[in-house]
Amino acid sequence: MIMLSRIAAWEANKPLSYEDITVAPPKAGEVRVKVICNALCHTDIYTLDGDDPEGLFPCILGHEAGAIVESIGEGVTSVAVGDHVVPGYTPQCNDPDCIFCRSPKSNLCPTIRATQGAGVMPDGTSRFTSADGTMIHHFMGCSTMAEYSVLAEISCAKIDKKAPLDKVCLFGCGVATGWGAVWNTAEVETGSTVAVFGLGAVGLAVVQAAQIAGASRIIAVDMNEKKFAQAKSLGATDCVSPAAIDVPIQEHLVEMTTWGLDYTFDCTGNVEVMRAALECAHRGWGVSCVIGVAAAGKEISTRPFQLVTGRKWMGTAFGGWKTRSDIPKLVDRYMSGELDVDFYITHKFMGVDKTNEAIDALHSGECLRAVVNYSAGSGPAI
Amino acid sequence: MIMLSRIAAWEANKPLSYEDITVAPPKAGEVRVKVICNALCHTDIYTLDGDDPEGLFPCILGHEAGAIVESIGEGVTSVAVGDHVVPGYTPQCNDPDCIFCRSPKSNLCPTIRATQGAGVMPDGTSRFTSADGTMIHHFMGCSTMAEYSVLAEISCAKIDKKAPLDKVCLFGCGVATGWGAVWNTAEVETGSTVAVFGLGAVGLAVVQAAQIAGASRIIAVDMNEKKFAQAKSLGATDCVSPAAIDVPIQEHLVEMTTWGLDYTFDCTGNVEVMRAALECAHRGWGVSCVIGVAAAGKEISTRPFQLVTGRKWMGTAFGGWKTRSDIPKLVDRYMSGELDVDFYITHKFMGVDKTNEAIDALHSGECLRAVVNYSAGSGPAI
Repeated sequence: MIMLSRIAAWEANKPLSYEDITVAPPKAGEVRVKVICNALCHTDIYTLDGDDPEGLFPCILGHEAGAIVESIGEGVTSVAVGDHVVPGYTPQCNDPDCIFCRSPKSNLCPTIRATQGAGVMPDGTSRFTSADGTMIHHFMGCSTMAEYSVLAEISCAKIDKKAPLDKVCLFGCGVATGWGAVWNTAEVETGSTVAVFGLGAVGLAVVQAAQIAGASRIIAVDMNEKKFAQAKSLGATDCVSPAAIDVPIQEHLVEMTTWGLDYTFDCTGNVEVMRAALECAHRGWGVSCVIGVAAAGKEISTRPFQLVTGRKWMGTAFGGWKTRSDIPKLVDRYMSGELDVDFYITHKFMGVDKTNEAIDALHSGECLRAVVNYSAGSGPAI
Repeated sequence: MIMLSRIAAWEANKPLSYEDITVAPPKAGEVRVKVICNALCHTDIYTLDGDDPEGLFPCILGHEAGAIVESIGEGVTSVAVGDHVVPGYTPQCNDPDCIFCRSPKSNLCPTIRATQGAGVMPDGTSRFTSADGTMIHHFMGCSTMAEYSVLAEISCAKIDKKAPLDKVCLFGCGVATGWGAVWNTAEVETGSTVAVFGLGAVGLAVVQAAQIAGASRIIAVDMNEKKFAQAKSLGATDCVSPAAIDVPIQEHLVEMTTWGLDYTFDCTGNVEVMRAALECAHRGWGVSCVIGVAAAGKEISTRPFQLVTGRKWMGTAFGGWKTRSDIPKLVDRYMSGELDVDFYITHKFMGVDKTNEAIDALHSGECLRAVVNYSAGSGPAI
């Protein structure tokens, strides 16, 4: 059975096109899902805006979603038709020979890395075709800005069916990444001090996670002071705008704290901010974690003295979470009331044809997460 | 009582001058020592060559030594006249209010940092005066290229009197730094893979320590293939000269190892090598540790993607050892036969007036450590 989806990105810097896209059945080891909700993330926009030199067009964007398994390919055993899943852009093959899946230190399973980067399924082909027969690329192994999509089985985190897909779709990227950077990568301890640069969804998730980890001081940094109220409501103890001070922000934060902060996080993708975050980490033991994705070709720099005097520079991809093992647990913690994500959803849209409006909302700067619900207009079976 | 010493550096790029230097008695909290042996380190030469823009002249260089306490100032309790000490350029005040001494994560006690950097004792004055009355600066809180010197009590590691000072002087800097980078900072584990860039004394100490830590593969990298035999004798499993390959060294090492090495160490001070060391660290969890001291103004750079995909960049100062707690233990391990350092001493000299020859030896590139024994010509008391 062929399904249809209706949102393609034909080229950079153009609105998405609404049209019939054929979504072929899943092949061996693949899963076709009906996407219920997709949340927009800046990485989608980064590609759509043409800023990613490796971005492939035409494609179906989207990678932060809640979906239901519609059909499964040969050999698929870990999910069944009707299961609820959160797609993951970092797969988890769990093969005993995969040193990354085997290691507790990493979630960077490389099993389908090459084909995922090339915008195709693991067999080297696409499941998406336009009406005129053009092959449409997959994106980040997810392509969830669509009514139907096909994923590798190893990219599907099976979650509690009772969880609301219009909320837990957020576990597919930004919010989970911010939490994981704090808990898994930097391992913020009770009583420690934290600085967060950039107060979008990821930065606020860092504030939220640092507060849950018991940080004694959380300094939130953003050029937009409108974001401070929400940061404070999540646990920020101090808020600073670099625009409101007359020294470099790292110098200001070191002055505020004598020796710097135990843990700092860049959630901006700006390499100058990454440097500032490192340089206000505590002398002797400060850890600075890069979360933001930098523009192509940009490099981070600092004097090596910053490292020799005890600072550590690290980074995180999807917060260190292993997609299939960890997303279900995060969903359970959400369901138990422990972890709130509802407030991140500042904009909601209903129906496929609202996706361009959701993109405009994300561009506005007032939006944390815009969630588009596709279930009201899911594509017809043919 | 005034003592004399006889080795001053009057200006950059000039041989040391042998002349009478008055060494004033220790003030409160200070210790005057008779230096028995001083080992030359590249940091001395870096300053003497005028490459350190913060280098102060005239000064008495030297910071890797074995010495005997000659007299103590008021309030000194942790060492007594006749005690054997290894001076430390990283002091350890042990004040309950010192967050650095209190923390197991750092050895960077800042108590006398400002005055040490300014080339004076903690009260802001020097104990060294030339015959014409010129004040001579202290250096790195040690100034052990001298027959007598004055140190802060908190810079003195009291060691076993039975230990040979002409050997354990090496615990004052390079060799201990290499070991500590492996055991304390990077915490290399049994079975892990290691790359070492630069096979001077520090790099060889890294090889030695990695072998003791149980590393399963140790790749030693140097432009000078003459150094490979010794690296192999200490445990290196592979040796590579960047001059003998036609791709960047990091690319070559990743090819050799599939995903890179678990731990990499820069022992060169060259910022391009620091970058290479980071970029051949293992995807997902590789740790790269900067040990070498870069030239003034130099910066390290890389794409942040290197960190986001799991590499950690860190550095070490004196290998993380706390001077007064840890140097005595290292000396005990040497005395028990566990840790060999004798082979690092490739050049020995007897008498104050051989110091310039020792410097020439270090410049030759064939020297790991040149130790000058001053006890045969110690300065007269007046």
